[in-house]
Amino acid sequence: MTNELVLIFDFGSQFGQLIARRVREQNVFCQVVRHDLSAERVKELNPKGIILSGGPSSVYEPGAPHCDPKIFDLGIPVLGICYGMQLACHFLGGQVGGGAHTREYGRATLTVTDRNTIFQGYPTESTVWMSHGDQVQNVSGDFEPLASTDTCPLAAVKHKSRPLFGLQFHPEVAHTPHGGQILANFLRDACGCSGQWKMTAFIDNTVRDIRARVGSRRVICGLSGGVDSSVCAALLVKAIGPQVACIYVDNGLMREGETELVKHTFRDWFKADLHAVDAKDRFLSALAGVTDPQQKRKIIGKVFIDVFEHEAKSIPDAHFLAQGTLYPDVIESGGSVDGPAATIKLHHNVGGLPAELGFELIEPLRDLFKDEVRKLGTELGLPEDVVWRHPFPGPGLAVRCLGEVTEAKLATLRKADTIFLEELRKAGLYRKTSQAFAVLLPVQSVGVMGDGRTYENAVCLRCVQTDDFMTADWSRLPEDLLARVATAIINKVKGVNRVVYDISSKPPATIEWE
Amino acid sequence: MTNELVLIFDFGSQFGQLIARRVREQNVFCQVVRHDLSAERVKELNPKGIILSGGPSSVYEPGAPHCDPKIFDLGIPVLGICYGMQLACHFLGGQVGGGAHTREYGRATLTVTDRNTIFQGYPTESTVWMSHGDQVQNVSGDFEPLASTDTCPLAAVKHKSRPLFGLQFHPEVAHTPHGGQILANFLRDACGCSGQWKMTAFIDNTVRDIRARVGSRRVICGLSGGVDSSVCAALLVKAIGPQVACIYVDNGLMREGETELVKHTFRDWFKADLHAVDAKDRFLSALAGVTDPQQKRKIIGKVFIDVFEHEAKSIPDAHFLAQGTLYPDVIESGGSVDGPAATIKLHHNVGGLPAELGFELIEPLRDLFKDEVRKLGTELGLPEDVVWRHPFPGPGLAVRCLGEVTEAKLATLRKADTIFLEELRKAGLYRKTSQAFAVLLPVQSVGVMGDGRTYENAVCLRCVQTDDFMTADWSRLPEDLLARVATAIINKVKGVNRVVYDISSKPPATIEWE
Repeated sequence: MTNELVLIFDFGSQFGQLIARRVREQNVFCQVVRHDLSAERVKELNPKGIILSGGPSSVYEPGAPHCDPKIFDLGIPVLGICYGMQLACHFLGGQVGGGAHTREYGRATLTVTDRNTIFQGYPTESTVWMSHGDQVQNVSGDFEPLASTDTCPLAAVKHKSRPLFGLQFHPEVAHTPHGGQILANFLRDACGCSGQWKMTAFIDNTVRDIRARVGSRRVICGLSGGVDSSVCAALLVKAIGPQVACIYVDNGLMREGETELVKHTFRDWFKADLHAVDAKDRFLSALAGVTDPQQKRKIIGKVFIDVFEHEAKSIPDAHFLAQGTLYPDVIESGGSVDGPAATIKLHHNVGGLPAELGFELIEPLRDLFKDEVRKLGTELGLPEDVVWRHPFPGPGLAVRCLGEVTEAKLATLRKADTIFLEELRKAGLYRKTSQAFAVLLPVQSVGVMGDGRTYENAVCLRCVQTDDFMTADWSRLPEDLLARVATAIINKVKGVNRVVYDISSKPPATIEWE
Repeated sequence: MTNELVLIFDFGSQFGQLIARRVREQNVFCQVVRHDLSAERVKELNPKGIILSGGPSSVYEPGAPHCDPKIFDLGIPVLGICYGMQLACHFLGGQVGGGAHTREYGRATLTVTDRNTIFQGYPTESTVWMSHGDQVQNVSGDFEPLASTDTCPLAAVKHKSRPLFGLQFHPEVAHTPHGGQILANFLRDACGCSGQWKMTAFIDNTVRDIRARVGSRRVICGLSGGVDSSVCAALLVKAIGPQVACIYVDNGLMREGETELVKHTFRDWFKADLHAVDAKDRFLSALAGVTDPQQKRKIIGKVFIDVFEHEAKSIPDAHFLAQGTLYPDVIESGGSVDGPAATIKLHHNVGGLPAELGFELIEPLRDLFKDEVRKLGTELGLPEDVVWRHPFPGPGLAVRCLGEVTEAKLATLRKADTIFLEELRKAGLYRKTSQAFAVLLPVQSVGVMGDGRTYENAVCLRCVQTDDFMTADWSRLPEDLLARVATAIINKVKGVNRVVYDISSKPPATIEWE
């Protein structure tokens, strides 16, 4: 692995991780760190470059998040984006202002006036995405402008004597079509990155690291059936073979055929030491009568830990616990050493195991984004069905079976879900959508069947497009596909007489219903 | 009004009313009658022609519905469609058979071999819609074939000596593109109809009839705000002016602005004697705590009758009660003298007032189909908003506010509904869709708003295309419209964080949810 590292200072931007993914796309390793990381620590980490993210605050507000101003004196190239630019200018001789005449949200036309540095090869006129209340209004003679828009004379600036650049717009979003070019220029020319961060190198390095760390001891790996834990397990099997014991807990909340796929993949194909625990009854009895979604999640989490722990104890000499934690989870949970503080989201995944289990943690994917994990899975030879599986929540179908979870409701939901996914695959749309599933609504509505009146359940189909699962839009599925799925579900799934399609975006809705 | 009448014998076809509408489109008055109407009664009614509908039975089955065979001896032209053709041939010398090789459902190519009578001007090859289990397999020498398809040699026949025609396919459905031509030929050439049934003539005749019947007495007219009762009231105002007292019960379950539109139209424009009764509180208290949909409908019906009756008693000398009952309701409720027996459907509309109120009924629209009522309303000068208003159920928003009905839930639903309908109108799609509305689901789901977690209601949008409201398909609304409506509802309607679109057809779902 190359030692090239870029740090992304997080000032609370909704696009923080997106910046990181864009940097990775340039084959440069990067990490999102908290905004007040000391210059001393930065020096220790020795990054090739620093990117300051945007953020919702005003730099002059009391309590606004500031970086350690000494980071500008380290000689490390800095790119400030939006709030990051304002902050850099605020510290180094610029004036930031707000008000109605500076607020801008949406597309703007950028005119580049200086194409020598980060705008090399950039079109003179292009579309960029603006999303700001304040903007830099004046800069000292130490800065020079690089680009402007109609309402923003200082849309991009560079410092005359320091390797410091500022962008008022967002190069990381898709609405800035050539944004990747700016990042590439900054990384290559300003930071001197060589772009060596590749998946094959990652495998070799990680396998070596795992072997060195584990030695002759044993590792327990939690398998959920999802991409992350499957890739994690496959990587461990590659590194240490029979020293990994994979534990798969069948909680009775899985989709059709899922348990079988896990068994087939790991037991038959990878020849792994797979412990598949049938704990359906335990989960379902614990969930009986419970309707509150938070409560449901907590119960499932607790039973999972009990079952997992019991099975884990049966594995002699287990010293490590491997988890398929990904970089976004690491950032969001505040689990990164230098990373931003935790956000409020309550996660449940295999990573929800408590420290008290007494194992030492191994998280070989903790530096990777989802798309990188998929690439890794393919390199490791996992089947396409596993590598491209849509994300599936830890509490499984329980959060898609609104209200009380019963075996009968799960069976109904499973049938509807299978019909939806099969039709989606047949239409060649499964890989083109980010997540697709059915939800069983605890709503009964009237229908007609033959000459009789029915009063049955409704099923909601949910399908979304998203890059990062932080924001998502509903998939514009072909109408004939929707009609076909709805008809098939109503005709074939007993107890369902109505199908709806979720047309809410995230935010303000979420992808899952509970 | 012309005395031209065509009788349609109903053998339980799903297309019975459709045949009637197709005949009306030829400006010929017709009525749907029960299948076993005696030849004697037919003679009394003196129709210009008879059409025998299709039906689900097999003519040779025990208990299969037969017509009085003597109707074939009256010299009245007869057109048998599908089962109707099989029945005619069964009685007059043909052999009807069933089995796998005769079953046909879907489009077929018809080759016409004789274009002298009902196929005048018909293409030699054309598409027709087949939907049958049996077919006529042999006919005696009294019949001659007129057309055939690949699997059906006798797709159309005529009797050599009687004015009798038979069609194995369905000329009345849209899937038989030239079907109207056959009906026109039959009505004009075989039956000798002149096609004089026009709306202006209907108004003149009906106004004259109403005046003659009412004399100097007074009429009470129930106004629901819907097309039917509005047209009924307008027709009565035209006929007898201040002798009509219109009663409008504001049940608190109306949509945004609806009560105001009724008041404006009838009080300000038609200068009618409008009694608008504010009974919101009575309805809402009666509905408090009630969640069962049937129970809700019953309560609303009962309170409506109480309120209406109380108001009606305050109108001196009222002798008649006018209702906007339409022909399909008359047929379906078994309320027609010679019509088919009642079906099971539970209706609630202004027509749900009990006979015990002691009024004599006036139903001036009881011979009309919906599209004819709209034409009539336009002729009478009703505003477009009223004439083209989508159907609205008697129990109003109560059946779209699933579970218990409360003022708060109604207010939420009303806002969502208004946003949907306004956007639909703006997109020019209101008149192109048959019925569109929002439903408030008693389902809470998780959402994100700013940094917080929400747990709020879901709204379902329902929009359908239908000719007759007996079957309906969900409207393929433009995706950007759906996205715009969903976003607007979630952003503007407090308490809603998710929007879904109903993609179920009727049957097996229904248009309304309760």
